[in-house]
Formats: sequence, C-alpha cells, structure tokens
Amino acid sequence: MNAGSIFVWEMLGTSVLVLLGTAVVANNVLRKTNGNGGGILFVTVGWAFAVFAGASIADPSGAHINPAVTFGLAVSGDLSWADVPIYWAGQMVGGVLGAVLTWLTYKLQFDDHPEPENTLGIFSTIPTIPNKVWNTVTEIIGTFVLVAWILLTPGADVSSSGEPVFGNAALGYAGVSLVVLVIGNSLGGPTGYAINPARDLGPRIAYALILPIKGKGDPQWSYSWVPVVGPLIGAGLAGLLFLAVSGLS
Amino acid sequence: MNAGSIFVWEMLGTSVLVLLGTAVVANNVLRKTNGNGGGILFVTVGWAFAVFAGASIADPSGAHINPAVTFGLAVSGDLSWADVPIYWAGQMVGGVLGAVLTWLTYKLQFDDHPEPENTLGIFSTIPTIPNKVWNTVTEIIGTFVLVAWILLTPGADVSSSGEPVFGNAALGYAGVSLVVLVIGNSLGGPTGYAINPARDLGPRIAYALILPIKGKGDPQWSYSWVPVVGPLIGAGLAGLLFLAVSGLS
Amino acid sequence: MNAGSIFVWEMLGTSVLVLLGTAVVANNVLRKTNGNGGGILFVTVGWAFAVFAGASIADPSGAHINPAVTFGLAVSGDLSWADVPIYWAGQMVGGVLGAVLTWLTYKLQFDDHPEPENTLGIFSTIPTIPNKVWNTVTEIIGTFVLVAWILLTPGADVSSSGEPVFGNAALGYAGVSLVVLVIGNSLGGPTGYAINPARDLGPRIAYALILPIKGKGDPQWSYSWVPVVGPLIGAGLAGLLFLAVSGLS
Amino acid sequence: MNAGSIFVWEMLGTSVLVLLGTAVVANNVLRKTNGNGGGILFVTVGWAFAVFAGASIADPSGAHINPAVTFGLAVSGDLSWADVPIYWAGQMVGGVLGAVLTWLTYKLQFDDHPEPENTLGIFSTIPTIPNKVWNTVTEIIGTFVLVAWILLTPGADVSSSGEPVFGNAALGYAGVSLVVLVIGNSLGGPTGYAINPARDLGPRIAYALILPIKGKGDPQWSYSWVPVVGPLIGAGLAGLLFLAVSGLS
Repeated sequence: MNAGSIFVWEMLGTSVLVLLGTAVVANNVLRKTNGNGGGILFVTVGWAFAVFAGASIADPSGAHINPAVTFGLAVSGDLSWADVPIYWAGQMVGGVLGAVLTWLTYKLQFDDHPEPENTLGIFSTIPTIPNKVWNTVTEIIGTFVLVAWILLTPGADVSSSGEPVFGNAALGYAGVSLVVLVIGNSLGGPTGYAINPARDLGPRIAYALILPIKGKGDPQWSYSWVPVVGPLIGAGLAGLLFLAVSGLS
Repeated sequence: MNAGSIFVWEMLGTSVLVLLGTAVVANNVLRKTNGNGGGILFVTVGWAFAVFAGASIADPSGAHINPAVTFGLAVSGDLSWADVPIYWAGQMVGGVLGAVLTWLTYKLQFDDHPEPENTLGIFSTIPTIPNKVWNTVTEIIGTFVLVAWILLTPGADVSSSGEPVFGNAALGYAGVSLVVLVIGNSLGGPTGYAINPARDLGPRIAYALILPIKGKGDPQWSYSWVPVVGPLIGAGLAGLLFLAVSGLS
Repeated sequence: MNAGSIFVWEMLGTSVLVLLGTAVVANNVLRKTNGNGGGILFVTVGWAFAVFAGASIADPSGAHINPAVTFGLAVSGDLSWADVPIYWAGQMVGGVLGAVLTWLTYKLQFDDHPEPENTLGIFSTIPTIPNKVWNTVTEIIGTFVLVAWILLTPGADVSSSGEPVFGNAALGYAGVSLVVLVIGNSLGGPTGYAINPARDLGPRIAYALILPIKGKGDPQWSYSWVPVVGPLIGAGLAGLLFLAVSGLS
Repeated sequence: MNAGSIFVWEMLGTSVLVLLGTAVVANNVLRKTNGNGGGILFVTVGWAFAVFAGASIADPSGAHINPAVTFGLAVSGDLSWADVPIYWAGQMVGGVLGAVLTWLTYKLQFDDHPEPENTLGIFSTIPTIPNKVWNTVTEIIGTFVLVAWILLTPGADVSSSGEPVFGNAALGYAGVSLVVLVIGNSLGGPTGYAINPARDLGPRIAYALILPIKGKGDPQWSYSWVPVVGPLIGAGLAGLLFLAVSGLS
C-alpha cells in the first residue's frame, strides 16, 4: 500500500477511536449530559468499542491506529521500519482531529461547564498518584498485554500488507476490543491506560493549541512523555517476547 | 426484491428496534418497574442490542431500519434512489408501531406514573441543552460515525440486493450493535443520539396522535426536525467520504 | 433423535439456564454475597449468558430449553407435534433441578437471610403491578420478540433434527443471548420477563415443594399461569408471523 | 507438543489471566484508582475477558490455563494423564507471576492503602460466610458448569494436541469468557468463584511469600484447600458427565 493510503486510513481510524474514546469521558464528566456520572464501566465499554469502530474503518492499512502497535509489529519483524513514520503521522493527525470532533460534539456542555480548568482529563490521561517511574511501569504492563495479545493470538496479527487474518477482520477487531475492555477495567486504575501515544499526545496537543475552551487548564507537558514512552517500551517488549517464543510451537 | 417485501421487512425490523429501544427508556424512567434507575449503561446496552434484534429480522431487505442508512447507501451508489421512498415508508410505519407496542408493554406503569407530562423522553429525543445549531452538529457527527462504519468496514456494507456480506449477516449486525453501543456511550450525551429519523419521528407521531396517556406532554414539534435533518446530513457526508476514499485501497 | 436423548439434553441445558439465571438474582438479593445490590444490568447480563451456556450444552437436541420456543417451532412447522411433550418434560425437570442447584449454591445465604418470606422472587417472576390481563400482554410481547427473532433470522432457526445452522451453533447461541439481554433490559420491567414457562414454573414447583427454606413465602399459584400462558401465546403468534412472511423473500 | 512448550504457553496464558483478574479487583478496591468502587459487574466483566486474553495467548497448548480444566480433560479421556503435571506446573508458575505483575501495576496504590491488612481479597478468594463444606459445594457447582460447558459444547473442547476446534479458536475463547462472566454474576456470590486452583493458590503463595506489602494480612492457609479441591471435584464430575452422555447423541 502506498504511503498516502496508509496515512489516510490510519488517520480516519484513529480519529474515530479518539473521538469516541474522549467523548465517553466527556459524557461521563460534563454536566447536562445523558451520561453524567455514568461510571467507570460505562467509560471502559466506550473506549473498548471505540477501538472496534476505529479499527474496522482502518482495516485497509492493517488497523494499527496506535503508534505502539506499529512499533511492536516492526520489532517483531512483521512491518518494515520504513513504514513506521507514515503510520505514526496518520495516527497523530487522527488523534488531534478526534479531539476536535469531541469538542464540537460537546460544545454546549464545555461552554456550560463550571470548572473548565479541570477538562484536560477528558482528552488526555492524568495519573491518580503522580510518580513518573511507577506510572511508566503501569503503562508498560498495559501496553505489553495489548501488543502481546495481538502478536501471539493465532490469526490476530496484522501484516504489513494490511491484511488481518483472524478468520475475518471483524472478529479480530472485536477480539482486540475485548482485550482493551479488560485492560481498562484491570490495568487502567493508576494512569488511565493511555497504552497508545497518539490517543494521549494528539488530544493533548489539540487541548493546548486548538480547542477554544475558555479558562481551560494546563496541558501538563511534564507528564506527557510517560504515556508515549511507556507504551513504546511495553510494545517493544511484546515484540521481543514474540521473537523469543515464535520457535516454540 | 419487490416493493411490498421491502416495506414489510423494514417495517418489522424497525418496529422491533423501536419497541426494544423506547422500552428500555420506559423501564429506566417509569416507577414500579424492575429497571427503574437502571442507569445510562443499562439504556445504551438496550438500544445497542435493539439494533441487533431489529437488523437480524430485517435481513432480507438489507437491514437498513434507519432512513439515514438508506440515504447514505443511496449517496454511496449502493442503492437505487427509486427504492428510497419504499424503505422510508416501511421504517416510519415501523417506528410508529414500535412505540405503540412499548405503550402496551408498560400500560400499567404509564397509568401509574405521577408525571405523565414528562414522558415524551421515553419515545423521542430531547436535547439536554437546547440549541438547534449545535444539537444538529451533534446528530451529524453521531450519524456520520454510524454510516461511515457501515460503508467503510470491509464486508459490513449491505447491497441493494439485500445481501449483507460480513462473513455472515449475524456478525455484521452484531458489529453494528457494538458501534451503536459506543455511539450511545460517547456521542449520546447532548441529544440522546437519535441518529435515525424513523426512531425519533415515528414515536413522536405515535406520542402526539395515538397513545392514550392521560396528561401527556407536548410532542415538541419545534425540535422534531433536528433528529431528522442532522442524521440525513451525517449519512450524506459519510456517503461522500466513501466515494472519496473508495479509490484508495 | 430418540426421545430419551431429547429429554436428557433439554433437561441438562434447561437446568444450567435456570441455575445460572435464578442464581444471579440470589446473588443480587441475598445478604452476604459478593453481588448484593449489583443492580439490574448485573442481573440481565446474568440471564442473557445463562441462555448462552444452557443452549450450547443442549445443542444436540436443538437447544430449545424453553417450552415456548418448542411451541413456536411446532406452529411454524419446523418440529413434529409428537416431539413437543418430550421437549416439555425435559425442560420442566431441568427447571426444577436448576432451582435446587441454586439453593445448594446459596445454602448459607438462605439460612442467613432475614426475610425468608421474600425469596420467591429469586426463583419465579412476580409482577411489579399485578394485573393478570396486562401482565399477560407484557409476557406475550416479550416472548413474541424472542421467538420471532429465532424463526426469522436467517440461519438462526433450529430444525427438528437438532442441527442449528447459524454459520455455526455457537454464534447462534450468542445471538440469542444478546436478544435475551435486550428483552430483559427493555421488556422485563413490568413482569420480570419469564418468556419461558419452564424457567418460571419449574422453580416455582421447587420452591413450593422441595426447597427447605425455613419461613419461605407463598408460591403465588394464582399468578403462576400468566408466565406459562403468555409465553405460549407470544410464541404461537411468532409462529404464525413466520408462516405469513415465509413466502415474501 | 513437547513439555517445555506446554509449560511456557500455559505459564504465559495463566499469568495474563491472573494479572488481569486480580488487577480488576485491585482497581475496584484500592483508593486513588480510576476504578475505585466500580462495582461487581465491573469486576466480573474484568475476570471474564481476562480469560479471553489469557486463553487466546495460550492457544498453542490448548488454552487450559486452569488446573481444573486440565483435570476434567484428563478424566474425559481427551488428555494424557502424563501431561497433567506439566500443565499444572506452568499454570501455577503463571499464577504466581500474574500476582506479582498486579502488584507492580498498583505499587503506588498499595503503598497508599490505609488498610494493608485487608488486601488478601485482591489476590485470592475469601468466602462471605465461612463454612468449608458448603463453600466447597459452591466451588464444585461453579467449576462443574465451566468444565461441562467446555466438554459438552460441540466444537468447544480442546484436544490434547492443542488444537481447539470451535470454528476458530477465538470464538471458542470468547464463548468461554461469556460462560465465566455468567458464572461470576450467578455463582460467585458466596465464595468469589475461584473455579481455578492456579488462579487462587498461585496469588496466595505470592501474597504470603513474595509481595513486599507492608502490614499485609494473613494468607488464610486454612481456607486455601477449598478453592483447590472444590474445582477439581467439580471438573472431575463434569468429566464423568461427559463420559456418561457421550454415547447419547
């Protein structure tokens, strides 16, 4: 697939993922919504099937929609390193675009919100107990589970040719969604499970530079590298595990 | 497929969709039900699998059960414009019929309800912050995601010949349900995600003209065009996106 | 399949269905359980996948595990009327057995319960507003949706030879579960969605005659015919609908 | 498959299962997490798809990830008794490893927890009403349902050659997850549904001997045999049922 097509599909899929994912947090947090106070399962179910929707749409490019997945596939040998920057560019632009769409969807609620300085958490992750070392450990473990599942589950891996082979693509994307659901329920407690640099950094950029939310808060740049570096390390370790066990069975 | 068969299948599927969808709100809102106060996830799960049930039943006609889906398929070139009015007629009649069935199911609870003037929200959507422009934007975005997913997911589209090809039909309908679930969780906050003119206008007509609820409230006709026009615009944009990217992969 | 095998498979499947279904209500209602106060979605999810578990196990006999489904299949012409009593016998014995297993599972909690007179609702349905006519209407509509879905969804019907053909059996049973989930969320409000005579009458018999719960309440025999007759009428109507539309597509 | 490979795959799969399962309880119970007070459905959904994730990864060895499943397969004749100790060893090591990973994920929250003496329940099961006989009965019934479902569902059984044949593997693992979900909702009330000796004893060993939680509580060794013996009895009974009915259909 040519670079332009990879860029477009990854951008489309990631924008749908980030729109639906950040919007469920908006629905849960903002006043005067039908989902206000919907709770943590309401949110993790939203993020899980946000992945399903976004991945289905990005099927032609292999449905990475996550720079850490792209990195893990490259480490495992399933993707050419030359394609990595193209995937990452599409994913980052999609992450920014998705955040803008969430703001458009909830524009009236953002205007109405009594604490606009506390809206960063709708778009990007914030640790419940800040500690850059241990927060990174949490992100490493969460992303390791995600990428190890993708690489190790027979038929779930996506090849660089963009042809997922899980029986059929839809089943693979549904399977990934269930894994994201359990990662949210189980490993999302301390850091909000970024497990995807584009899902975290893209909306953070949008929040800082683009969204016209009056009185908005600090984008917390000092923390912003944790949900980028942690996922990449976790994905890299999953790629190495794949290489280590691929001779076993 | 002849016009009469299209009409019957779309009417049956849409009536099941609207029965199950409006009834979950009734269960959540009315007193003396097992689902009173069940919460937003209880409701969005209900609407999601209402789509699954209704779409499965309407499989022979392509399982549109939504005038916006029909419109998006026509824009994308997958459906003859001549068939559009037949689909719409079946869907609208099904929407009215489904609302009547919900009233029959909860007849005792409607009689018992202390605030009958506040029952429109069981049948049709009401924005949490009324603003026709931004409410329309929200409905456009929600419907765009739904129809873009249907058109772009490989094997999920339904052809004018009424043969869904998602591996098998059931998987496609389950997939659409998960997308409707996440749209409900994520994009339903401001307007209650009509994303389907027949699902909103049909029950509104039933509420205004047919249902014998004593002391019932105003059908809010002045808002009624938003959940019709917004979904059609969103579906049309999804159809145009499909045409734009269909040469890519 | 010979009568003895039909009896055994339907008994096994229905006992698993009724065990898992009544037990989720026990978990929700009894004190000193991990599920106390788990809520309505917790319960409807339990009943939904109780159907999945029971139906999978009863696959060899066609996985009816519900006298109303058996009746609807006979009306539609898909099952010999001579087999109906065999199916019903296995289902009823399974219903009684499942209730006994739930009591064994929660024996300590039943002994500890401060209101043993209010435990019928764990085993059998009780209407929130008693009215035999309208309660029957609610049960008719709920069962109609279930059986119409089974009969009309292409590939979801089960033949009298016991070979479900939904692509594969497991997908069909998962599909039925999702339909039962939405029926619970949407149509279960007024009567607790028996939609299955064996699921209601079997446990009621066990409660009245077998379970040694000290101070247990009245089995409410005067209501007991509603969750038997309503589901049979609803299933019969679905069978007639099937015959009416089967020439359409 | 050689013994070393069985050991590695079972260890990997069980460690992912136990990580995701114990971590959802940590998220629900510990302070300063996003999942604090998430509720019982949040927890049972976590454990259900923890099974999906772990089983998918352990696919090459047949995805037992549970000593009781291994035992039931051996009783049913589907697995060589000589392989049982190898499976059990991998599963137990995985159970210990998963608990360590949960502690690493929630390290900051464990340090912050005001009642460190009450953290055993994150890792291992504790009965709500202690009574070794009836607690064992509950574990027998829960595990019987799980293993009977695996053995009896056509195409869901795993052979000793490690080739699950449920249409495709992923569907079988999704199916098992739904059964684990309903067992959690329905049968988990009295004992917390260990239904897997490695899931309970592995983390208990880690809690007692490895995890550096200051002020941690008693590992309750006197109860520890119940969630080992109960599941093995239940699985053995399911294996005998399989042999009894395998001539029927």
